[in-house]
Amino acid sequence: MDQHKFILSESEMPKAWYNIAADLPFEMPPVLHPGTQQPITPDDLAPLFPMAIIEQEVSTERFIPIPEAVQEIYRIWRPSPLVRAYRLEKAIGTRSKIYFKNESVSPAGSHKPNTAVAQAYYNAKEGVKKLTTETGAGQWGSALALACNFFGLECLVFMVRVSFDGKPYRKSMIESWGARIFASPSKETACGREILARDPECSGSLGIAISEAVEVAVADEKTKYSLGSVLNHVMLHQTVIGEEAQQQMKLAGDYPDIVIGCVGGGSNFAGISFPFIKDKFAGKKLQAIAVEPTACPSLTKGLYAYDYGDTGKLTPLVAMYTLGHNFIPSRIHAGGLRYHGASPLVSRLVKEGFIEARSYQQTEVFQAAVTFARSEGIIPAPETAHAIRATIDEAKKADEEGVSKTILFNFSGHGHFDMSAYDAYFSKRLEDNHFSDTALQKNLAEIADLPKV
Amino acid sequence: MDQHKFILSESEMPKAWYNIAADLPFEMPPVLHPGTQQPITPDDLAPLFPMAIIEQEVSTERFIPIPEAVQEIYRIWRPSPLVRAYRLEKAIGTRSKIYFKNESVSPAGSHKPNTAVAQAYYNAKEGVKKLTTETGAGQWGSALALACNFFGLECLVFMVRVSFDGKPYRKSMIESWGARIFASPSKETACGREILARDPECSGSLGIAISEAVEVAVADEKTKYSLGSVLNHVMLHQTVIGEEAQQQMKLAGDYPDIVIGCVGGGSNFAGISFPFIKDKFAGKKLQAIAVEPTACPSLTKGLYAYDYGDTGKLTPLVAMYTLGHNFIPSRIHAGGLRYHGASPLVSRLVKEGFIEARSYQQTEVFQAAVTFARSEGIIPAPETAHAIRATIDEAKKADEEGVSKTILFNFSGHGHFDMSAYDAYFSKRLEDNHFSDTALQKNLAEIADLPKV
Repeated sequence: MDQHKFILSESEMPKAWYNIAADLPFEMPPVLHPGTQQPITPDDLAPLFPMAIIEQEVSTERFIPIPEAVQEIYRIWRPSPLVRAYRLEKAIGTRSKIYFKNESVSPAGSHKPNTAVAQAYYNAKEGVKKLTTETGAGQWGSALALACNFFGLECLVFMVRVSFDGKPYRKSMIESWGARIFASPSKETACGREILARDPECSGSLGIAISEAVEVAVADEKTKYSLGSVLNHVMLHQTVIGEEAQQQMKLAGDYPDIVIGCVGGGSNFAGISFPFIKDKFAGKKLQAIAVEPTACPSLTKGLYAYDYGDTGKLTPLVAMYTLGHNFIPSRIHAGGLRYHGASPLVSRLVKEGFIEARSYQQTEVFQAAVTFARSEGIIPAPETAHAIRATIDEAKKADEEGVSKTILFNFSGHGHFDMSAYDAYFSKRLEDNHFSDTALQKNLAEIADLPKV
Repeated sequence: MDQHKFILSESEMPKAWYNIAADLPFEMPPVLHPGTQQPITPDDLAPLFPMAIIEQEVSTERFIPIPEAVQEIYRIWRPSPLVRAYRLEKAIGTRSKIYFKNESVSPAGSHKPNTAVAQAYYNAKEGVKKLTTETGAGQWGSALALACNFFGLECLVFMVRVSFDGKPYRKSMIESWGARIFASPSKETACGREILARDPECSGSLGIAISEAVEVAVADEKTKYSLGSVLNHVMLHQTVIGEEAQQQMKLAGDYPDIVIGCVGGGSNFAGISFPFIKDKFAGKKLQAIAVEPTACPSLTKGLYAYDYGDTGKLTPLVAMYTLGHNFIPSRIHAGGLRYHGASPLVSRLVKEGFIEARSYQQTEVFQAAVTFARSEGIIPAPETAHAIRATIDEAKKADEEGVSKTILFNFSGHGHFDMSAYDAYFSKRLEDNHFSDTALQKNLAEIADLPKV
């Protein structure tokens, strides 16, 4: 019988993260101070992040060692399995080969602990006592709660209200690891109170939740902020996924024609794809596909421009694909993909043609989720299901073209805390999104005065 | 750094289940027909089970081959990891070594698919079209839904009402795999309607849910019944856990002094312990500890006697530790342990002194669950937490005695669908149980007229 899972031993786990900044065939635009609009200095970021993280954010070293204490936590679930999805292939009747990297095996249920553990470690090492953060679907908040618990840090999570209400058990999970959690916008911060005054029913957004977490962090010297996606150091920490996948594809005697991941901020996609894009820079043929919801189409409908990372304009200005920092996406179930911007690295790689982007409506995404659950057994998170949708479509396209492709996608997380979304899908209460181009133009007009890339 | 997980390759997965019936140093009492009270024949069981399962129920072959089609499904998550719990050891400050077998990695989140897949396979092979079953906490219902999905069988699940109401997302999970689910007692069956007429607020029990599932199964030739615990063939299928654990303990260069599992019907405990009890029969020193809730103390307060497996008296009479088939345990959160009886094999091994039994209150169990979640990261199911409580206590006892023991417990399932129980614990709404000996005596009096063992 054919082998199903390709497993590495703990001793084969990567000892260093891959830093794509070392190999980019183009210059990245500088990050700008939100006040002066001049390139930021490490000192500007010091109130938010520990120095080790700031150094990683700007590093051009190709490989950055993974500290032993971080590796030790990784070993709870890493190396994660690479799985040949024979049953999915059969279910959709494709001649293509489908592999997925199963990041849902972490205690928090997603890839997010890969960076949460690293960030908690560096903060603890530099004497920080408390971390604040935002969370959309709850995957990131759970991951940071878990990581802070391991390093004895307090943890404060602002969870986008629409997800907080829809996923009560994320709250209990986060509390199980000893963290505190608030629905955002909250009354805990000036920024939250201001938004609630304008719109008491505000369903929240990642942009707002980031503003709240940043506001709390800058107010206290021993408190810092932790971001679960977007920034360079987060992409860096996630490359352990792709590094392992490269070893495992070798075990399988294969190499992907296509690498696929969903994109909210971009970290799980970067994690699996960057080590392969390294090969692409070196001449290897590869298609990298970033998948986002039509309800929040930063990469497919956004503008490549300088913008704030948050709604409250507290973060630096970064050059990225953005829908405008005031853009609030509709209430789709893939809460982790409801971000107005995207990783500067992923954005620029899209702009330069190294990555393709596409978007899907949520009903077609849930259809793919159920196809996967009923063939491979595992119930995917709604975010992950975007990658599955694109994988199925790419396999079918190859069949139509009469070719067989090798497709690798990142199974970024399980859906155990998203079952109300499945309920909505089965009871036909799930609606597709009517994206408003008018609203988009209005939001983009608001960033017209910011510096040009 | 020391190795954390001990992983077997797919090719090292056991090819046969271990049947403890081959090695018992005593005779098992016959199973009796509920009507005639005479030993049952295979024909008596044929309306409920396929012939292959009936044969396994009475087989005395030491090893029974695992069909290739079952192995193929097992490989989705098997072999499961054996983990050295360094962080738990450190958290409780013990000198003992703690290992756990992580059965929570199956798509359904517990050990239950080990038998669900086998049962679905044998039923499908014999032309059955639909399976009915009961579920307490939801772990078993999820597992059978998953398994039926793989073999193209319809699946109907009766879920104990107290769990159905407290765990709405189990329903969605079961539906994700294409099964149908009802809260039990339900209006779907005569038995359910009768109980609801007496007590419209009845919180249900495994005994009632079994009656409902059996009633539906016997009414149609192409429909059969599937039980997730108690019976010999279920214990058999679960031995894949202990067989793997034996190989993995060898990899770790260790052998357990103590093997621990929680007991509702007994299957996860039997699964991990029977292959080790085989060694014990052969003279090896070993302590096997079965852990149950004080709210439903079959092994510690029950009578070893013939009793029905269900409340409706539809099942055969088996010799086991029982609290009486009308016993309805209080509404504790470990729904999977709310069964009035226990596996005849486990019961008899307790009676003969090969297994020890003990019981715990739920607050001390949740305390252990949180200690585990905050040290090892993974959030345990309330059932599993019973085994963790006993593990911690055994380690502390060894410390007090100035010795170091090697303890292996079965991490039978994760708690992702039990977070409302954690919520209750954190908000101090969780109450200990006041077990009524008077009620017990009343229930036991009701079985006084049944045949004696």
